Amino acid sequence: MSVGLTPLVRLDPIQGIRLGSLNAGIRQHERPDVLLIEAAEGSVGAGVFTRNACRAAPVVVASRHLQQARPRWLLVNSGNANAGTGDEGLKAALFCCQEIENLTSSPLETILPFSTGVIGEPLPIEKIVAVLPKILARLEEDAWLEAACAIMTTDTQPKGMSQRVVLNGNTVTVTGIAKGSGMICPNMATMLAFIATDAPLSDDIVQYCLHQAVNASFNRITVDGDTSTNDACTLLATGRVGIPAMTTVDDPRLPTLIEAINQVAIHLAQSIIRDGEGATKFITIDVVGGKTDQECRDVAYTVAHSPLVKTALFASDPNWGRILAAVGRANVPDLQDQTIHIALDEVPIVIAGARASSYEEAMGQAVTAKEEMTIKIDLGRGQGQFHLWTTDLSYEYVRINGSYRT
Amino acid sequence: MSVGLTPLVRLDPIQGIRLGSLNAGIRQHERPDVLLIEAAEGSVGAGVFTRNACRAAPVVVASRHLQQARPRWLLVNSGNANAGTGDEGLKAALFCCQEIENLTSSPLETILPFSTGVIGEPLPIEKIVAVLPKILARLEEDAWLEAACAIMTTDTQPKGMSQRVVLNGNTVTVTGIAKGSGMICPNMATMLAFIATDAPLSDDIVQYCLHQAVNASFNRITVDGDTSTNDACTLLATGRVGIPAMTTVDDPRLPTLIEAINQVAIHLAQSIIRDGEGATKFITIDVVGGKTDQECRDVAYTVAHSPLVKTALFASDPNWGRILAAVGRANVPDLQDQTIHIALDEVPIVIAGARASSYEEAMGQAVTAKEEMTIKIDLGRGQGQFHLWTTDLSYEYVRINGSYRT
Repeated sequence: MSVGLTPLVRLDPIQGIRLGSLNAGIRQHERPDVLLIEAAEGSVGAGVFTRNACRAAPVVVASRHLQQARPRWLLVNSGNANAGTGDEGLKAALFCCQEIENLTSSPLETILPFSTGVIGEPLPIEKIVAVLPKILARLEEDAWLEAACAIMTTDTQPKGMSQRVVLNGNTVTVTGIAKGSGMICPNMATMLAFIATDAPLSDDIVQYCLHQAVNASFNRITVDGDTSTNDACTLLATGRVGIPAMTTVDDPRLPTLIEAINQVAIHLAQSIIRDGEGATKFITIDVVGGKTDQECRDVAYTVAHSPLVKTALFASDPNWGRILAAVGRANVPDLQDQTIHIALDEVPIVIAGARASSYEEAMGQAVTAKEEMTIKIDLGRGQGQFHLWTTDLSYEYVRINGSYRT
Repeated sequence: MSVGLTPLVRLDPIQGIRLGSLNAGIRQHERPDVLLIEAAEGSVGAGVFTRNACRAAPVVVASRHLQQARPRWLLVNSGNANAGTGDEGLKAALFCCQEIENLTSSPLETILPFSTGVIGEPLPIEKIVAVLPKILARLEEDAWLEAACAIMTTDTQPKGMSQRVVLNGNTVTVTGIAKGSGMICPNMATMLAFIATDAPLSDDIVQYCLHQAVNASFNRITVDGDTSTNDACTLLATGRVGIPAMTTVDDPRLPTLIEAINQVAIHLAQSIIRDGEGATKFITIDVVGGKTDQECRDVAYTVAHSPLVKTALFASDPNWGRILAAVGRANVPDLQDQTIHIALDEVPIVIAGARASSYEEAMGQAVTAKEEMTIKIDLGRGQGQFHLWTTDLSYEYVRINGSYRT
């Protein structure tokens, strides 16, 4: 099942980024499961990683390497998360990086490992290093679509997007790929996203752009509240487009570029939600009128994580009582129910904390029967706002997550 | 479905407490749906109520009345929650209290209303007041079992327990009843619990005992994290046992009494979990070794609310990676995975943040196949502790909560 996910047909290459992938036999399928991404000399990069205290070995290594040097190589494997593997897992991740160091003469700190798949099994390093020379021999710029396939685990479709903008009369391209079935994959199989652009950015600005993009996208999606041990997102900027570098946040060209990066990131994030296994609905939760953005965020996530709300949405049941009750338990200080308004798309269902007098069940049912809908919540006490994207909770979710590991 | 719930056979009367219940036709069934509990003159009482900001009308009225006077009457109806009903709901709750005031000459503030059932529908006050004279005419001390039935909504069995202790050579009795299918009832149908004792307590001490009991019981259960708009628990003490009153927290008799009250409250709380619709497992989550009790609590609830953990438990899958990942995202400051140990009953599954070398899948499966099990988590960094009780997440949960309101 997936909700409104359009097939991925084409991804634009990025000057200075080459990719290669092959099947190393980590899992049983025939798809490529090892991907290598090369960023040309002079590229800059940034990464954000899971806040889970139990971080997988590759996350530990990649975030440390990113602090030490500019990235040149991203090594990604699917099929095995190298998580819950202790010191052996750290050694395994480093071993793979060292092999690339030997083969390419790039310093160890410029090589970042990423893994996704089952937790707690030893990383099959022999299988991975065996395919590295072959992958290095076949790196090419126009290989993003295969790369999107190589990082899939339980995803039903590869996920990616390209955007182009014109800066100083030159075309700048942004391309990104991602994997993840909404954090509901077997054994926390992780969200991974790799975005690149040929725009020339300073180290500070690539970091700034990535945080803007993640806040607008991956930090606004949730299926079940479970944060993976392996989640990671990186942004590479090769600077191969011949325009002056962007080095300050008030560069007048930056908003245009950030908009393009954000669009790619939002598309990737929404694709993960749309591909959530068990998802039958794509739900936007839009909270306004809080004293702060943070309290709007708290309300949005409380509603999004409420199993009672999610099962009602699965059943196309406009159960406004459950939504109101979830808002009420979001721990917003001094929240008064008399100021709360709730609508489903354009249909008011709660006004001043009680059922809207205009509301009739059939009106709400017409909205909740749709595949895509927005729950609009106005807390009526300020200018704060936050929105996120989520799914319903279906039988299929229980089946997938209950029947795994047979 | 229910897990290890033993039939309720007998509840001991409490001197000074009389009860009566009748069917008022609020819902379609034949069971009594209106209950009146009378506490004799001189009784003291305390209550704890939902922290949901959207509090149902009866919660607003009952908590206000409790602050103004000692309680004499508890009026409970099932079938309608009188929640999400705005000002009309407040008037309806007060109207029912006024009717009891008229019939009994007790001051309005001594009358506490409680409601449980569907949200957002007007309380059928005519039906309720119509049966009040008949109920007043049939009040009796030995009517707790019928009372336990009268407050049921989707509960599959009435829930109650009695305990007796000897203080100063006299038998003191504690009896309690509760309703709730683990907060997963249709439309947040609420947890309600009413406990009474014939021990002589001061106003302060009855409050103290109730908080002790709630912290040991109802504040340690969770099915899905959804706190109802109507949750309430009260403790009445009639003082009809002829022993000196307990008026200070260091009264040497108090621990014995508190132990009895706690046992009743814990039994009621566990019964709610065992009767959780859709529940196929009764799970204890026992967290130790935190720097504070609070961080143990955060970890326990994060694990208990993880849909990935809950679906794995439903499938009898000892998926330790999901448990470890849930511990890791509980926002415990500076948590190091190297100090974390996890066991299923007596089987170590995680040692120092990685899979226990002694662990084999069959060992975990033998534990998770059982109806009752304990997940033991040691954070390895202090003396804090917390435990709670919860259930798995089954197809049945989705069916019940998705198919309601047909």
